[in-house]
Amino acid sequence: MTDFTATKAMFHLPEGVIYLDGNSLGPLPRAAAARVARTITQEWGDMLITAWNRAHWMEMPARVGDRVARLIGAEPGTVVMGDTLSIKVYQAIASALEMNPARRVILSDTGNFPSDLYIADGLVRTLGDGYELRTVAPEEVENAIDETVAVTMLTEVDYRTGRKHDMKRLTEKAHAMGALAVWDLAHSAGAIPVRLAEAGADFAVGCSYKYLNSGPGGPAFIYVAPRHAETARPALSGWLGHEAPFAFDLDYRPGRGIERMRVGTPPILQLAALDAAMDVWDMTTIEEVRARSIELTQLFIARVEASCPALTLASPRDPELRGSQVSFRHPEGYAIMQALIARGVIGDFRAPDILRFGFTPLYIGPDEVEGAARILAEIMDKALWDRPEFKARARVT
Amino acid sequence: MTDFTATKAMFHLPEGVIYLDGNSLGPLPRAAAARVARTITQEWGDMLITAWNRAHWMEMPARVGDRVARLIGAEPGTVVMGDTLSIKVYQAIASALEMNPARRVILSDTGNFPSDLYIADGLVRTLGDGYELRTVAPEEVENAIDETVAVTMLTEVDYRTGRKHDMKRLTEKAHAMGALAVWDLAHSAGAIPVRLAEAGADFAVGCSYKYLNSGPGGPAFIYVAPRHAETARPALSGWLGHEAPFAFDLDYRPGRGIERMRVGTPPILQLAALDAAMDVWDMTTIEEVRARSIELTQLFIARVEASCPALTLASPRDPELRGSQVSFRHPEGYAIMQALIARGVIGDFRAPDILRFGFTPLYIGPDEVEGAARILAEIMDKALWDRPEFKARARVT
Repeated sequence: MTDFTATKAMFHLPEGVIYLDGNSLGPLPRAAAARVARTITQEWGDMLITAWNRAHWMEMPARVGDRVARLIGAEPGTVVMGDTLSIKVYQAIASALEMNPARRVILSDTGNFPSDLYIADGLVRTLGDGYELRTVAPEEVENAIDETVAVTMLTEVDYRTGRKHDMKRLTEKAHAMGALAVWDLAHSAGAIPVRLAEAGADFAVGCSYKYLNSGPGGPAFIYVAPRHAETARPALSGWLGHEAPFAFDLDYRPGRGIERMRVGTPPILQLAALDAAMDVWDMTTIEEVRARSIELTQLFIARVEASCPALTLASPRDPELRGSQVSFRHPEGYAIMQALIARGVIGDFRAPDILRFGFTPLYIGPDEVEGAARILAEIMDKALWDRPEFKARARVT
Repeated sequence: MTDFTATKAMFHLPEGVIYLDGNSLGPLPRAAAARVARTITQEWGDMLITAWNRAHWMEMPARVGDRVARLIGAEPGTVVMGDTLSIKVYQAIASALEMNPARRVILSDTGNFPSDLYIADGLVRTLGDGYELRTVAPEEVENAIDETVAVTMLTEVDYRTGRKHDMKRLTEKAHAMGALAVWDLAHSAGAIPVRLAEAGADFAVGCSYKYLNSGPGGPAFIYVAPRHAETARPALSGWLGHEAPFAFDLDYRPGRGIERMRVGTPPILQLAALDAAMDVWDMTTIEEVRARSIELTQLFIARVEASCPALTLASPRDPELRGSQVSFRHPEGYAIMQALIARGVIGDFRAPDILRFGFTPLYIGPDEVEGAARILAEIMDKALWDRPEFKARARVT
């Protein structure tokens, strides 16, 4: 059994703050500060250029990628770190489209994180030639996967509502229809058990600065299923994805397996922070974190619904159908969130009306959940949000 | 006049090392360690998600970009930091191609850094439709710019030989022929005066971990000429390049000016290191650094040619025609460089036969140049490289 007091002690959490925004930026793992300092002074400072070999910097994207792989049900050697999530989305969908050349449609949903849609739109415009980004409502995705779809591009957990797609079922539908499946795990990796290999996903991507606590701008990751690893063509074919980067050949030859998805020089300081942040996973399992997350989110929903009738649950009520966050709607959501932050309860607001709270058992327990719900109730009461005259106003807003 | 003793004192340089590889990875600016530590503990640690606003993280890519702009002759507000150089090359050439739709040729040279060629090759394959990457020898570039060329993609300073293209002349030729000019400043920024605006460059890109000393994997930069800033379409259209990223609109609208070239979440730890590293430029000017660099490289060439006849100068002899590095050829270049590194003189080797030495006046002076040349001479003598029997062997290798 996980000792969540011990995992919490691994993080720096400011006094007087209840941090429910680890789904946006995870807090500082204490070990990360020391680890980055060591990388700077003992590696960069003292080893200079030789640290690429002596401090094994060059292997970090794959070595740390393997640590992430264990959390998302990916085979060893199938995940590599680098770039940002948007770049990794581009690589995944560009590669997938090329593997399905008779088709022209990227299928996504309107609940997807907008950057994924923007990136797909940019790719479609670059490709021209009848390529199309088709978006449907999240609940219509399954029916919309038909024999015109080249690739599905879906984010497993909706960034606003926490609604969770059924990865296995949608991947199977995609394959049955002759499409490839690309999954964005931004709100899944480190939050819920993901079983990429078992689900048969073709590509997956994600970021590390949310539930993996790597710090602001930490590197993204990309997964390529082993069956595609030696054939996928990386559209962003940078030198560190070359079979022999230091041969400085004029012609590109993709590297072995997942290595080909590397592009440029890896961000070593950010990777060092991530590497340190991953140590907490030696003390627990994603399954135990998930079980605890469900307890916490159920408790939060119960408390808020009991004391804040003006807030409407925006997340699925069934915990099996949502990720590790809970969202409520209110027309004055922005103002409410500002008031919460002023009281030390940090969640975030997502337009137009979503109050979003992330629950991260590594450092959040029932006491914080009760405290956050109590402060939220006080704010809602103080501001008279629950009174009939306010409700009348809110309805016409 | 610059006090180069004072600039040198800003860097951590290990005892017993003569570091002539700042053109590959700049050494640690002392201020960078403290600055990154502060960013980690006081910003990430204590402010958590609110640091995006309170610590002005979100504006860092443009603010630091402006500091870089001053070194490369770019107008304020035309440079933004992010991603890796390979990604920025992709953005620049993809945007440029789209601005010249009647043509299909990217012109580059065989001396270009291979990653630029790989990236262009990947883009051409993605575009299909008759697009072509055409490469010629560096000295043939000017003649090869004809009315079929859509965009020239050139690295100003050759990574192996230090040979410098005439940016203004080639840009004018490109424009005269109806092509756009994209310049890679990897070995220029912080090394030599660059005058992007004066030369009329359309796009420029570069990295910060070489002569700008931002540390391993520091962010790249991209410049877009003001005349294109509101029309260039970023092929990699990520959310932070959107006009209103936090509106979470489903449709992409490019941001104002250079902001549209941002893609994903910026790497704040690496940006903090770069920001600290830029402080040294408050103590000197790129013109004074260039004048000193020429003195140092001329001295090194004179000393090495006097004592190491087996080494052949691979860089242009005229300092006006080269960047801030000096390269020599020798068939056993790899072994010679290993011997140098073992003696504390750190340069690097580039296949097949190049010994490369970067001269960075911010922290390298005449004493280090004399010392490096003396140790090189000792190695060449000790290993008998200069003797006839070795030369005979080397010729058949």
